[in-house]
Amino acid sequence: MSGIKPGYIRPLDLRHGLVDLTHGAGGRASHQLIESVFKPAFASTWPEGWQAAGDDGAVLTNPLAAMPGGRLVMSTDAHVVSPLFFPGGDIGALAVHGTVNDLAMMGAQPLHLSVSFILEEGLPLADLVRVVHSMAQAAMNAHVAIVTGDTKVVERGKADGLYISTAGIGICPPGLHLSGQLARPGDAILLSGSVGEHGMAVLSQREGLRFEAPIESDCASLHGLVAHMLATPARLRVLRDPTRGGLATTLNEIASASQVGMQLDEAAIPVQDAVAAACEFMGLDPLYLANEGKLIAICDAADADALLQAMRAHPLGRQACRIGTVTDESPGFIQMRTRFGGQRMLDWLMGDPLPRIC
Amino acid sequence: MSGIKPGYIRPLDLRHGLVDLTHGAGGRASHQLIESVFKPAFASTWPEGWQAAGDDGAVLTNPLAAMPGGRLVMSTDAHVVSPLFFPGGDIGALAVHGTVNDLAMMGAQPLHLSVSFILEEGLPLADLVRVVHSMAQAAMNAHVAIVTGDTKVVERGKADGLYISTAGIGICPPGLHLSGQLARPGDAILLSGSVGEHGMAVLSQREGLRFEAPIESDCASLHGLVAHMLATPARLRVLRDPTRGGLATTLNEIASASQVGMQLDEAAIPVQDAVAAACEFMGLDPLYLANEGKLIAICDAADADALLQAMRAHPLGRQACRIGTVTDESPGFIQMRTRFGGQRMLDWLMGDPLPRIC
Repeated sequence: MSGIKPGYIRPLDLRHGLVDLTHGAGGRASHQLIESVFKPAFASTWPEGWQAAGDDGAVLTNPLAAMPGGRLVMSTDAHVVSPLFFPGGDIGALAVHGTVNDLAMMGAQPLHLSVSFILEEGLPLADLVRVVHSMAQAAMNAHVAIVTGDTKVVERGKADGLYISTAGIGICPPGLHLSGQLARPGDAILLSGSVGEHGMAVLSQREGLRFEAPIESDCASLHGLVAHMLATPARLRVLRDPTRGGLATTLNEIASASQVGMQLDEAAIPVQDAVAAACEFMGLDPLYLANEGKLIAICDAADADALLQAMRAHPLGRQACRIGTVTDESPGFIQMRTRFGGQRMLDWLMGDPLPRIC
Repeated sequence: MSGIKPGYIRPLDLRHGLVDLTHGAGGRASHQLIESVFKPAFASTWPEGWQAAGDDGAVLTNPLAAMPGGRLVMSTDAHVVSPLFFPGGDIGALAVHGTVNDLAMMGAQPLHLSVSFILEEGLPLADLVRVVHSMAQAAMNAHVAIVTGDTKVVERGKADGLYISTAGIGICPPGLHLSGQLARPGDAILLSGSVGEHGMAVLSQREGLRFEAPIESDCASLHGLVAHMLATPARLRVLRDPTRGGLATTLNEIASASQVGMQLDEAAIPVQDAVAAACEFMGLDPLYLANEGKLIAICDAADADALLQAMRAHPLGRQACRIGTVTDESPGFIQMRTRFGGQRMLDWLMGDPLPRIC
């Protein structure tokens, strides 16, 4: 003890300090990090009256009490995007949107998130604070509460700044059943907006590229748009957000899971001019670039127009359009009529042109 | 396409292959990893009749249907232990036990886990398979289902083999309220068994130390023991597993959260001879070493004997004993009567003598 008050610990310097191994050791420094960084930020996402007791988990009210016959949905995502900050977002916002969107694609209303951080020794505390505030903001906007968490620290050179895993639970209304296995020949394939922005925004930030028109990530929580869609009587069968692997890979997953073919119309797929130009310059295909705020919807063709109208009435679906049709030809394969009137097959993403995009 | 069947991909070599960046890209290689490694192993943990649809999340039946008035509990843990394999366990078993135990310490019956992997490029697939099988085994033993997951891959030198984050949900019976804030002066402090094995097992593996008697991690899922304890009428107030920071730090957390003092009896705290000898040799205190299969219980003193009896009737509580008493002296501080009859203060863990212990 040698003259120092037992338990004395220097206050955290959130402006100039660095993460060190003690912040993950479970002792006083871990406690300090929770009390001065995580708790104040995440408390803003909690439901009124809810308190974190500092225990090993969070006790939640029955999420199904308000929805008898509903089902619980659970999802998780790890986030390792590099760089941590990019135009239009950062790893914190992404970690919230990613799990919220996974729940939304199941038709669930997202409710609660858990978060676990893996921090690299030497990470500026200011960066951590920025990421945590961005998470809290994204969660507040999405009306989800970040209710429990964990933090580990690894030595310098054993991570890359920080990694974030989020898990989430939500509730799915009774009778609603959405799955990548449910696409049927004749169904319409809808897309909520332009593709490729997130992938290109991260890539350009990483490579230090500058374009005339800045390209921003589209990262956003999609459950509001989904709620709009579910409020229509449209017979919706599949919802999926085309993240890693892009539109092309996600459609292949659905075609494979449903054992159907698909016929797309390339000219109908919206791509921002700046993204198209950057892709051409870099030899990339926007259909394989990650999106973080777009969704694919597959529905009965008779309901496509009504569903599109509902989508366009929401800010995140203004550019919604029909991009193709589910067929019974070549189950598991995607055919696309190109802009030039030809046909090409759209395969899964092979290899990894853009690692650590989310 | 050049003569190769569209979508062709070499089968995974699970014996000699290595993880590469494509396994995290969300394309065909990711799909292959899920289908050939994760799904077959985790399917063994699923409830009968439950199916994974390959969607963005898992749809669960209402976990509270069988327990009206129950509450949902959610918890998460990141696992970065080094080395990945150690006597008595590995990172996979730890990732299951860690989250199961966090739920159990809230009095909840653990039900479902999500898992997110961060893999380092170059990790032997055989190591991944071993870890995944260990997770599946631990989950089966604990009767929890691993229902959804995610995998990312980072470049060589940006992780250390693999990291695992698990999140879990469980249900807590109506009326049960356990929290680190509920200890009261006069309460008895019980411990389920000897301390320090996990920390010493990992450390000895990491440093290549050999002891005459091998020291094995105590890692285990504690919810069975907890169920035994909850079946008694004992007025239980706090359950906590002394992981990172060890017994000393966890007791300090409780003392601080409940604003009470504690008086411990060092001689009553069981420590295996091999652990005590290794600690003495290395200048470590077993009270600060991590445990992964032990719990602290704080209950009304009048119920201590009955609760101890119930604990001792369970294989994971055979060595259960009373180690001290909650007091109203020096709130927030722990006093300990030493083996030699002196008194010393037991502070929080300061610094980090053993990074990446879990």
